[in-house]
Amino acid sequence: MTPRAGSSAVEVVGWSPAGGLRVLDQRQLPGRVEYRALATIAEVRDAIATLTVRGAPAIGVAAAMGLAGCSRDLALDALARDAAELRAARPTAVNLGWALDRVLDAARHADERVRREAMLRAAMRIRDDDVAMCRAIGEHGVALLRDGMRVLTHCNAGALATAGIGTALAPVYVAQERGLAVEVLACETRPLLQGARLTAWELTQAGIPVTVLTDGMAASLMAAGRVDLVIVGADRIARNGDVANKIGSYGLAVLAKHHGVPFVVAAPWSTMDLTSPDGGAIPIEARDPAEVTHLAGTRVAADGAAAYNPAFDVTPHTLIHRIITDRGVHAPPFFLAPDAGALPPPA
Amino acid sequence: MTPRAGSSAVEVVGWSPAGGLRVLDQRQLPGRVEYRALATIAEVRDAIATLTVRGAPAIGVAAAMGLAGCSRDLALDALARDAAELRAARPTAVNLGWALDRVLDAARHADERVRREAMLRAAMRIRDDDVAMCRAIGEHGVALLRDGMRVLTHCNAGALATAGIGTALAPVYVAQERGLAVEVLACETRPLLQGARLTAWELTQAGIPVTVLTDGMAASLMAAGRVDLVIVGADRIARNGDVANKIGSYGLAVLAKHHGVPFVVAAPWSTMDLTSPDGGAIPIEARDPAEVTHLAGTRVAADGAAAYNPAFDVTPHTLIHRIITDRGVHAPPFFLAPDAGALPPPA
Repeated sequence: MTPRAGSSAVEVVGWSPAGGLRVLDQRQLPGRVEYRALATIAEVRDAIATLTVRGAPAIGVAAAMGLAGCSRDLALDALARDAAELRAARPTAVNLGWALDRVLDAARHADERVRREAMLRAAMRIRDDDVAMCRAIGEHGVALLRDGMRVLTHCNAGALATAGIGTALAPVYVAQERGLAVEVLACETRPLLQGARLTAWELTQAGIPVTVLTDGMAASLMAAGRVDLVIVGADRIARNGDVANKIGSYGLAVLAKHHGVPFVVAAPWSTMDLTSPDGGAIPIEARDPAEVTHLAGTRVAADGAAAYNPAFDVTPHTLIHRIITDRGVHAPPFFLAPDAGALPPPA
Repeated sequence: MTPRAGSSAVEVVGWSPAGGLRVLDQRQLPGRVEYRALATIAEVRDAIATLTVRGAPAIGVAAAMGLAGCSRDLALDALARDAAELRAARPTAVNLGWALDRVLDAARHADERVRREAMLRAAMRIRDDDVAMCRAIGEHGVALLRDGMRVLTHCNAGALATAGIGTALAPVYVAQERGLAVEVLACETRPLLQGARLTAWELTQAGIPVTVLTDGMAASLMAAGRVDLVIVGADRIARNGDVANKIGSYGLAVLAKHHGVPFVVAAPWSTMDLTSPDGGAIPIEARDPAEVTHLAGTRVAADGAAAYNPAFDVTPHTLIHRIITDRGVHAPPFFLAPDAGALPPPA
């Protein structure tokens, strides 16, 4: 996978009139590159809930294409029910709902005979916008990178999480295009190991050096002066700049602050939730404790032990050095007004 | 396993004249409780290197019993070579070497005809001292616990890591004896999951409530006010109180400081390395990267991705609230003089 011209050579989510909707089954990576066809709303919902397709932007694209392509009944109330079912698949990522609203809006403005075409056009536009958004994040964010930098990231906010070159990894791909040597340190990201399985895979495919570490190793690498910058993605950003992202991100932000390492968030502007004044308002998905107590189907934690499994944590804006969006590189104070137009100028 | 009178109902390391040396194979827990007989120095070394037996105090006991029981040639120079082989099995734990020195010392003071008996007596004394040491840590450390506390720990510094009721977990066992309700939060501790596999197992066996979390979840639990105290063990403590312990401990110490949660280390006095002025002098074992890139024999990180795997990190004394040893609960400033007698009075 060599990302070029703002798009990725691996199709994470795809639609064709003949083949319908298909998604890359990310649960099988890095062992197998396998696609899964999704024919019904229930199948799309399950693919999102089981992390067959994951990453906030990719979820938005898949849900949009799913609603546009897999809905059986195109009456507006039936579409609203289908959208609600998809929306409930994962509660934290805000652009899941945002993408569905865009497709519903297209449906509302189209006569029922041409409604599916209008919805599909809206979904394709979301995908194309996502490709452009990734590219913009990369072009803006590359200003933070210098030759020889070692960038630590968490989970996967790369090409596999989007329709384009990713969010957190977009500046790294653009840096590569510009001939800068950037090395990525990938936290493996338990419980589901998206760092080891996905980030390491897409970066090695692109020829970018990557080293995997367990989540508990980041602190000692920072103490040794071996991390120059932390970049993570975001599933939802509150109006004050608080960021919900994969569990473990908040701890990395605290560690980064302690060691004087800049902590940067990269996400599309559609990740912004103008209805949440701060991180306390963001719902955090609790996933099945078996993801923690079991590995590859085998129980590793003793019978009788309980387990926590929140999918996300919230990093307060006070720990965030910059937020990169498709609109620019934003410095604190973040997003003072609910009106996006009041955004402070990029740093 | 109900720890009573300072000893554990599970025998982690055992010796009998008829059966020789046997160790509980901790790699098989929690799935199977299986013992492994060790007949030669090479087998003892391998059992330590592969973490069949692990935990700094338990390693010391196993090495002492191994040298005393499995050496073929009782000439002093041959014993010194056997001891060197065992010492090299793991470089960080200081009481591995300390225990071997005690057995070698017993050998030096005994005529060759009664040398094995003298060495075995020394090894048994190390085991008995370890049982008493754990009990003393528990009795001293319980002063830091109160009814209803939620204690976060990392890796396994419990009964399975010692011949007795553990180090970090000893105060928890003593609290239970005294009728205090203490809940343990066990970081799973990647890569080898000693928290999920061992700490959760021994605590559920003892009827103590335990909840497993991935290493990246600790920060958000602290932010939510759900952690009252962190207690970890130590593989080596430098003269200024810097502590080498399982990778991830240092990050927890930084997080604890940020959240105002006391960070406490519990270890036998034999863990003290008076020859290391500070943590920078402690050798850190680098283990096989495959422990990180593979799970249950299956590669999870992409081919071509590198991996870090330091077994330990160093927590500077400035982040440590108390150090519990068998001599008492020590408050900063730690261990001002190389002479143990100059230890400041316990807090």
